[in-house]
Amino acid sequence: MDINHTKIATADMESLHRIFTVAEAPDSTLGKIEKDISENLAGFLNEHIVAREIPLSEIERDFNHAHLPEEPTFVSEHTKFLLDKLVAHSVHTAAPSFIGHMTSALPYFMLPLSKIMIALNQNLVKIETSKAFTPLERQVIGMMHHLVYAESDAFYQDFMHSESDSLGAFCSGGTVANISALWVARNNELKASGDFKGVNNSGLYRGLKHYGYDGLAILVSTRGHYSLAKAADILGLGRDDVVAVPVDGEHKVLVDEMKLKANQLKQQNIKVMAIVGVAGTTETGNVDPLNDLADLAAELDCHFHVDAAWGGATLFSEKHKSLLKGIERADSVTIDAHKQMYVPMGAGLVLFKSPRLASEIEHHAEYVLRKGSKDLGSHTLEGSRPGMAMLVYSALNVLGRKGYELLIDRSIEQAAYFANLIQNNADFELVSQPELCILTYRFVPKQIKQLLKQATPKQALLINEHLDDLTQFIQKSQREAGKSFVSRTRINCARYDNQVITVFRVVLANPLTTQQILQEMLEEQVCLANKSQIALPELIRILES
Amino acid sequence: MDINHTKIATADMESLHRIFTVAEAPDSTLGKIEKDISENLAGFLNEHIVAREIPLSEIERDFNHAHLPEEPTFVSEHTKFLLDKLVAHSVHTAAPSFIGHMTSALPYFMLPLSKIMIALNQNLVKIETSKAFTPLERQVIGMMHHLVYAESDAFYQDFMHSESDSLGAFCSGGTVANISALWVARNNELKASGDFKGVNNSGLYRGLKHYGYDGLAILVSTRGHYSLAKAADILGLGRDDVVAVPVDGEHKVLVDEMKLKANQLKQQNIKVMAIVGVAGTTETGNVDPLNDLADLAAELDCHFHVDAAWGGATLFSEKHKSLLKGIERADSVTIDAHKQMYVPMGAGLVLFKSPRLASEIEHHAEYVLRKGSKDLGSHTLEGSRPGMAMLVYSALNVLGRKGYELLIDRSIEQAAYFANLIQNNADFELVSQPELCILTYRFVPKQIKQLLKQATPKQALLINEHLDDLTQFIQKSQREAGKSFVSRTRINCARYDNQVITVFRVVLANPLTTQQILQEMLEEQVCLANKSQIALPELIRILES
Repeated sequence: MDINHTKIATADMESLHRIFTVAEAPDSTLGKIEKDISENLAGFLNEHIVAREIPLSEIERDFNHAHLPEEPTFVSEHTKFLLDKLVAHSVHTAAPSFIGHMTSALPYFMLPLSKIMIALNQNLVKIETSKAFTPLERQVIGMMHHLVYAESDAFYQDFMHSESDSLGAFCSGGTVANISALWVARNNELKASGDFKGVNNSGLYRGLKHYGYDGLAILVSTRGHYSLAKAADILGLGRDDVVAVPVDGEHKVLVDEMKLKANQLKQQNIKVMAIVGVAGTTETGNVDPLNDLADLAAELDCHFHVDAAWGGATLFSEKHKSLLKGIERADSVTIDAHKQMYVPMGAGLVLFKSPRLASEIEHHAEYVLRKGSKDLGSHTLEGSRPGMAMLVYSALNVLGRKGYELLIDRSIEQAAYFANLIQNNADFELVSQPELCILTYRFVPKQIKQLLKQATPKQALLINEHLDDLTQFIQKSQREAGKSFVSRTRINCARYDNQVITVFRVVLANPLTTQQILQEMLEEQVCLANKSQIALPELIRILES
Repeated sequence: MDINHTKIATADMESLHRIFTVAEAPDSTLGKIEKDISENLAGFLNEHIVAREIPLSEIERDFNHAHLPEEPTFVSEHTKFLLDKLVAHSVHTAAPSFIGHMTSALPYFMLPLSKIMIALNQNLVKIETSKAFTPLERQVIGMMHHLVYAESDAFYQDFMHSESDSLGAFCSGGTVANISALWVARNNELKASGDFKGVNNSGLYRGLKHYGYDGLAILVSTRGHYSLAKAADILGLGRDDVVAVPVDGEHKVLVDEMKLKANQLKQQNIKVMAIVGVAGTTETGNVDPLNDLADLAAELDCHFHVDAAWGGATLFSEKHKSLLKGIERADSVTIDAHKQMYVPMGAGLVLFKSPRLASEIEHHAEYVLRKGSKDLGSHTLEGSRPGMAMLVYSALNVLGRKGYELLIDRSIEQAAYFANLIQNNADFELVSQPELCILTYRFVPKQIKQLLKQATPKQALLINEHLDDLTQFIQKSQREAGKSFVSRTRINCARYDNQVITVFRVVLANPLTTQQILQEMLEEQVCLANKSQIALPELIRILES
């Protein structure tokens, strides 16, 4: 091969060199924006993010070319495009009136620290590309393990930095955490025995044959997160093998019903591989009776996983942590740091009670993850991973347990306040009472409320169907107007004979959300309802006739 | 419930409010650091990252407490700790002499743009938390799809923003991309038919029974990435169902051997569900004969996946893209943007040739991903995800195809230069010739080289074992000294009767790596070899006797 190093023009090489070494000048467009964000994040966000009433199809027009740009673009020019076309049409997730999803404001120190993290560009899969980040991540996992399981100091001395053990794994989010936990559960259930080399080596088909089962199942309440069905699909179980167990009026799983299902499955020769308790359901924020579930798991001799992606942070609060009693008996626990731990998107965690459990998913390679190495990648679903653990570490240190406690207590109080506000308003109906800081409700004008009370089941069904349309109309209109945002979902409602109804869903985790904002939220919804095409007086007439 | 909003002290609430709104003062510790990074990244990295010779056990001492800190810490104080204990002991992945792994330098504009991305804190799982980021991500997927498949403009108009179709998925990295691709392949292989509701709903056990197979298999070369075995495990196939096919002297899969294996599996009633071509093997950077593999996949009627996590970016180069000829026939392709696309860690991509393929893994929920929505989360393995697509978008625009071409061409030339340097040095042996910018080599003093030439196979085995120890010693010493870094791996070597030997592995993707650095690399290795306990003269005596 002919090697001619000057083939690439020197001028090109120089500009290439610059792009990797010379930072943006402070007075350039990007430099100014950066300074803006650094000095005044709230100002930057307010100025540049206006959830303008603009249809998606219009935004799509700006992102419509499938051809790669041939030529380079000046950074400043590109940044201007981003500000006008991307940032301006982003969702202001940090806005105090954005209370519809689990993404909220970030503490300001997250931004400069994120920049350090990104500048370091560590890869946590192996020590050779992370060094100090590896012990740091292990410590964060250890701290979170301690928060849940509170084992002895000796335990953490033995296992936190042990190369052959794992107290958990960092990942991009709750879904991967749940998949990881159930992967471990499956491999542990069908582990190597006799001439069977384990499901990890020989697969599910041979595993079930070896153990003589006709299937595996996962039991969880009807309020379980959709990632569990996805996990079952990926793991080869099938979505139908996630058996949904009914909940009580407070959206908590009925443990007796779960036991009944387990027994039915046993009759069908299907092994319950795991039961899942939810600690903070996505839609209503309720916590399953974890202690009872732990008892049941012991009885069924199966894995007990707790999906605390949302509610796990409640453990920071002395006042409220008892809501999660029993979580310390779980074999695995999912917690999302990018939810109630106020870390930027992309920080999930799964914790394992037993340091040996993750060995069921251990893997090695020749150039990394060699046996005996402390490379974190030998026990994770993901391969290359960024150093997000640093941000969790910083949040834990800067806020401290007491800082988190303040945030959690405040959110729960705020939800109780809003629930009270809704209940005291004649034109609204609180559908689910908040246990953590999530609640659901809907707009039901007082005449309709009256009618619903007297309605036959058939009439109630009809009224609720109209109310569903109304709720959807209000939610969409409010979202499009862009001043404030609640989400919507459909849940079965004990009050209406378990009819599935559409409701507003509110997540009150942003510490900047004031009581006034909540009052205005209801006022805006009343206004929007009045604009609706769904003619309520007419509905009343039909029902009364 | 008694609601007393003043329960949390006002002073606490104020400091809480501050932490979410008030940015760090420019003259604070963190403010200064941030300014430092903004204005002079290279300076910051050089000053703060010194890969000091410090054992891991010593670093672990700084990250040894499993108890959460109770009290908050001042941000400045915490930042100082991070600089001293974390940043100072991180790996300088951007250093021009760090040429051992696939993580390298970042263009400077990535840092301020990352900060905008993190400040926006979008969640790409659904439009309600991402809005303009969703069309942007779809466009980036479209552009990368076009790079690989070059379909017509009409095709992209139809499918790029279509709610029911998907040209691919963003994810945290190549491992998740590979798992996603094989998940799609598995579900497509065992799709619903007759009374069988599909493997996604009914699981692998019932799927195999329905289709009458005794198993599924994935075929890939012995050089395939370890994530493929992990994928097989997760998907319920078992690691043994990834059948490793031998390679030729250039580390390219022997297609005839693969065909032979496939026929053997057919005899055992095992269906080949996918064959995988590698476009840039992790250890040697070689590309499989993709066109021949596409032919074989057609013959076997199975999914054809190309793992181009590393090599995909070669398609930017007019000069070298023909190396990947046949990739446009793949059903799915993995490309990592955080590798040769110089985007920060956490940006992987899987692309699907057919817009309908991903429907096999489609899922919905009541509060998000509703049918008919354009929420990206309905076709991804992960749930909540950050807006990393923005950084890929910016890189594509700022660098342009021609900018990437320059980088790719330069890397390949640099590897050819280094290979030449090694071959012209009497004391080194080039083990794998670079095809892209990865090569392997080892230190073999010229007397030993001479001996190896004359040695019997048994003698060669013995010599190579000693050389393995020497290679390992040099690599470890060099890593610990911290001036420069190559990785090491073990590969089978055609020259020595396919004996598995330990080699240095070099990845030449950092545009700041100079020829001088490469010359010094060899000089340092010679010095380190001289310090080795492995007495070469003695070895020579033994063998000569």
